[in-house]
Amino acid sequence: MNRPVVALLSDFGTRDWYVAAMKGVILSRVPEVQLLDITHEIPPQDVVAGAFTLAAVVRWLPPGTVVAAVVDPGVGTSRALLAARVDGRFVVGPDNGLLALALRDAKRRMVVRLANRSLWLPDVSRTFHGRDIIAPVAAYLARGGALGRLGPRGLRLTPLALPPVRRRRGFVEGAIVHIDGFGNLVTNLPATLAATGSRLRCRGRAVPVVSSYADAAPGALIAVAGSLGWLEVAVRNGSAARRLRARRGQRVAVETPHG
Amino acid sequence: MNRPVVALLSDFGTRDWYVAAMKGVILSRVPEVQLLDITHEIPPQDVVAGAFTLAAVVRWLPPGTVVAAVVDPGVGTSRALLAARVDGRFVVGPDNGLLALALRDAKRRMVVRLANRSLWLPDVSRTFHGRDIIAPVAAYLARGGALGRLGPRGLRLTPLALPPVRRRRGFVEGAIVHIDGFGNLVTNLPATLAATGSRLRCRGRAVPVVSSYADAAPGALIAVAGSLGWLEVAVRNGSAARRLRARRGQRVAVETPHG
Amino acid sequence: MNRPVVALLSDFGTRDWYVAAMKGVILSRVPEVQLLDITHEIPPQDVVAGAFTLAAVVRWLPPGTVVAAVVDPGVGTSRALLAARVDGRFVVGPDNGLLALALRDAKRRMVVRLANRSLWLPDVSRTFHGRDIIAPVAAYLARGGALGRLGPRGLRLTPLALPPVRRRRGFVEGAIVHIDGFGNLVTNLPATLAATGSRLRCRGRAVPVVSSYADAAPGALIAVAGSLGWLEVAVRNGSAARRLRARRGQRVAVETPHG
Repeated sequence: MNRPVVALLSDFGTRDWYVAAMKGVILSRVPEVQLLDITHEIPPQDVVAGAFTLAAVVRWLPPGTVVAAVVDPGVGTSRALLAARVDGRFVVGPDNGLLALALRDAKRRMVVRLANRSLWLPDVSRTFHGRDIIAPVAAYLARGGALGRLGPRGLRLTPLALPPVRRRRGFVEGAIVHIDGFGNLVTNLPATLAATGSRLRCRGRAVPVVSSYADAAPGALIAVAGSLGWLEVAVRNGSAARRLRARRGQRVAVETPHG
Repeated sequence: MNRPVVALLSDFGTRDWYVAAMKGVILSRVPEVQLLDITHEIPPQDVVAGAFTLAAVVRWLPPGTVVAAVVDPGVGTSRALLAARVDGRFVVGPDNGLLALALRDAKRRMVVRLANRSLWLPDVSRTFHGRDIIAPVAAYLARGGALGRLGPRGLRLTPLALPPVRRRRGFVEGAIVHIDGFGNLVTNLPATLAATGSRLRCRGRAVPVVSSYADAAPGALIAVAGSLGWLEVAVRNGSAARRLRARRGQRVAVETPHG
Repeated sequence: MNRPVVALLSDFGTRDWYVAAMKGVILSRVPEVQLLDITHEIPPQDVVAGAFTLAAVVRWLPPGTVVAAVVDPGVGTSRALLAARVDGRFVVGPDNGLLALALRDAKRRMVVRLANRSLWLPDVSRTFHGRDIIAPVAAYLARGGALGRLGPRGLRLTPLALPPVRRRRGFVEGAIVHIDGFGNLVTNLPATLAATGSRLRCRGRAVPVVSSYADAAPGALIAVAGSLGWLEVAVRNGSAARRLRARRGQRVAVETPHG
């Protein structure tokens, strides 16, 4: 039989012992588990960055993988925790939008709210639900536990809080919602809005929309469809973030084909 | 049978190949091992930070786990190396105080000084005892080797060098001994000294001592008992280190209940 | 049977999901694999730092280990990809010098150019050959696949681009080619050039060449033979990089014994 895989994504950083405590809880329950770090360097409490990272990676994980995802500014409040099956993988995390993009892109999905306390650690702290709830629930799923035993169906999920997308005469306006490690600027403008040959306005520049990186000269500033279906501003072999001194939240706009 | 777990804690960072060399030595001896990184980002040669991290995490690791701990400014000098059994886990590392807090909190413990060279790498360098001694000894324990075969009992261990705690009229003075990744300021003032409702003086502020995070408003500066029993200064959903521009070593004082 | 080991080395950093995608591809093909991170913090596109790190660590990995090495500024161009057997381990990576030092130091080696597309992912992107080619090829080797099935022998490999070493009257000039995590300055001057007692000129200082760290007082600036056979400038218990404000690429020179 395949070894179960539990992958972890968080904003805990790697300086402290928090990730190891989660892994210790999982290993105590599933000694044969294969542990996999997605990243623990999501910027603190940046649910949007976490949601992007999770949605981008989940399809590359082996079927059956359980992702324990913890970017959770609301820990200790009444926010719910969720577990979901997403195209044959599982994700466990807070109901704050963190799972929203992974669920959006799924062909088949089922979501429950965590309610069955018998599967959590006996003592649940107010500050570390990653260790006390998410880790043991991930371990339960990794051992083949049934999603339906975790709690009732999750019906109205908290959406991911993204900046508004506004249609104007000849333009659609959105924002930079994420900057990845290569300095690519991910916007929340659907790539389907922009015809190849149109331009994306970003930081005072008119950036040509191209169909692939291959159409760009090294060093050229381009806009392309990213892996999640949004337009991204990129520099081939370079950093668009550094070139444009761009930051998350800055507005961008794309000419609409039939403006 | 459960797979043996070896957890690593060091100040090696993750840029270089040192951690991988330790893991290679362990894997060569225990191919079925489950490797677990606690952290490799202990500030260089910061034995106190390493001791805190180790003591905080050890109880969360599965019984039988072997921790290879390397924060070792004295490598190449005559300082001893130790192996210890601590409440069913094992810790291997230098005799410089790194293991002191984990041992202090243990209900059951046994400590030996590493002396049996037949269990080390044949060629021991002067600069990398983590790879040449600690890794093969951790592998030996992970395979079920006997602690007593590593060397004689360790009797007088080097204590952890912490700043003095001084009792004054109506106050006890200590210091910030560690700042964790959330910016919480860990002091060496025993939480038992401070009644709830008293105040901790830190960086010119009088910080109320509360019994739990739940008693604090988001953004409020509070002092609470930390997981190791010392008072910590914290900001709920924020960084006390940034708020107070605090650094390790700065003095703090707490009003004593019967001052 | 021993679990196969796949070790990863890259310049991807650990903030994004790229490393996890490579691991997901490997785990999908070799569920029992033991994954090992060498480092993902090679400075972006720094092939020399990658080559040093790879050559330094490879001998410490268990025989049979497959290293997936990705420092690949030429991804998407016509540069070749290689797989090599190096003293019983395997290395897969781009033909840009990244493997050169590991191959140079090998007693037994065989190198092939990757050409058998049936072993790659069905859809190969232009930007992520680490996931699409190197990961599945590493998985193939980890499962015991034959090196010869990956492609034809690699004959003329791209050498590692190092600064020139020039012989002058009484001196040999080279450069700082790598600075490790302890701040040691690795030069490309063969240690065999320098008699003990001679001096290495670096940043305006005349640094004594000693035979081992043990010959230096704590805090003293010394030059010693490093693990790859080149002279290194080091400070015992300190950082030579900080002390000398040194940077990669700066020239150094050593007096030749028979100057």
